Amino acid sequence: MTSQRAALIGDTAIAILAERGMRGLTHRAVDEAAGLPTGSTSNHARTRAALLELTLARLADLEEANFQRTTPGPDFVDSMADALHHAITIDRAHTIARYELALEATRRPELRKLYDALGHRFRTTAITLLTAAGSPDPVRHGHQLVAYAEGLLFDATAGAGQTPTRDDLHKAFTEILAGILPG
Amino acid sequence: MTSQRAALIGDTAIAILAERGMRGLTHRAVDEAAGLPTGSTSNHARTRAALLELTLARLADLEEANFQRTTPGPDFVDSMADALHHAITIDRAHTIARYELALEATRRPELRKLYDALGHRFRTTAITLLTAAGSPDPVRHGHQLVAYAEGLLFDATAGAGQTPTRDDLHKAFTEILAGILPG
Repeated sequence: MTSQRAALIGDTAIAILAERGMRGLTHRAVDEAAGLPTGSTSNHARTRAALLELTLARLADLEEANFQRTTPGPDFVDSMADALHHAITIDRAHTIARYELALEATRRPELRKLYDALGHRFRTTAITLLTAAGSPDPVRHGHQLVAYAEGLLFDATAGAGQTPTRDDLHKAFTEILAGILPG
Repeated sequence: MTSQRAALIGDTAIAILAERGMRGLTHRAVDEAAGLPTGSTSNHARTRAALLELTLARLADLEEANFQRTTPGPDFVDSMADALHHAITIDRAHTIARYELALEATRRPELRKLYDALGHRFRTTAITLLTAAGSPDPVRHGHQLVAYAEGLLFDATAGAGQTPTRDDLHKAFTEILAGILPG
């Protein structure tokens, strides 16, 4: 994501995806919502596929900035609870837009490749953290920890769950770790 | 879901949502894919909102048939692993269609109400199971168990995760329960 214009287009597309869904995302809708001259979005991302990829790349930058707060060691549970709480409150639109792109990626192999490459980073981080914490099966546990975090996010933003408090999230991660780490 | 025709429309809409997403779902697309005379879907569900609600109601019936296999007691972990494995393999299209509807429900209050009412059933069941298992905090644990299951499903069907084996799922639920139930 190099230019400011591309960042603006990405941010606008994220907001449109969250508000109106995949049906509402068009090049013209981005131009209008961003206050750009007609054709600007097409100049940066000629095809629908290119627009979706630009949007996902921008989203990954924004989400990574949030999850970079997670730290290994004794603050791990605190920092996970903070990052998740942020993702379901302040960054709720980002989270919903990402789900729209994840579903679209089930039908678009190029978008799938990009989505999986970005998702791989989170799993690598989780595996490193759990190895450091003494997990006897860090690859499986790392993948499952990411899946549980995703479930808490999905449930609170798009599913039938209520928004958990920061304290609920703290307890959730404490219990997950209690179940997988040697006592 | 009373009539056979409504069930056919629902099943067809579910398949279209999974294959083509929310953009691909129209009354005409359902007529065509189901081999029904033009206008049949409109006769059963006049508006787009009505079509989405009919589809979600049909999906809930199908998913409930799957999750009715989960049983309390010593077979709980086995039966959860089975139901989840079914939902990410044989019923993968149902799971993806449900996510499309969950996201659309963030923008449609009537659909939200229906989605949440259906989701409430799963949470009630989870709370009952965890109470019976001796959870010290069954409401919070029940909600979190549903969220973790959702995360495992999402990760395997739309996210960047790989499809877990039945054995992976069995281990996951065993560890989750180890972390929340008194030793």
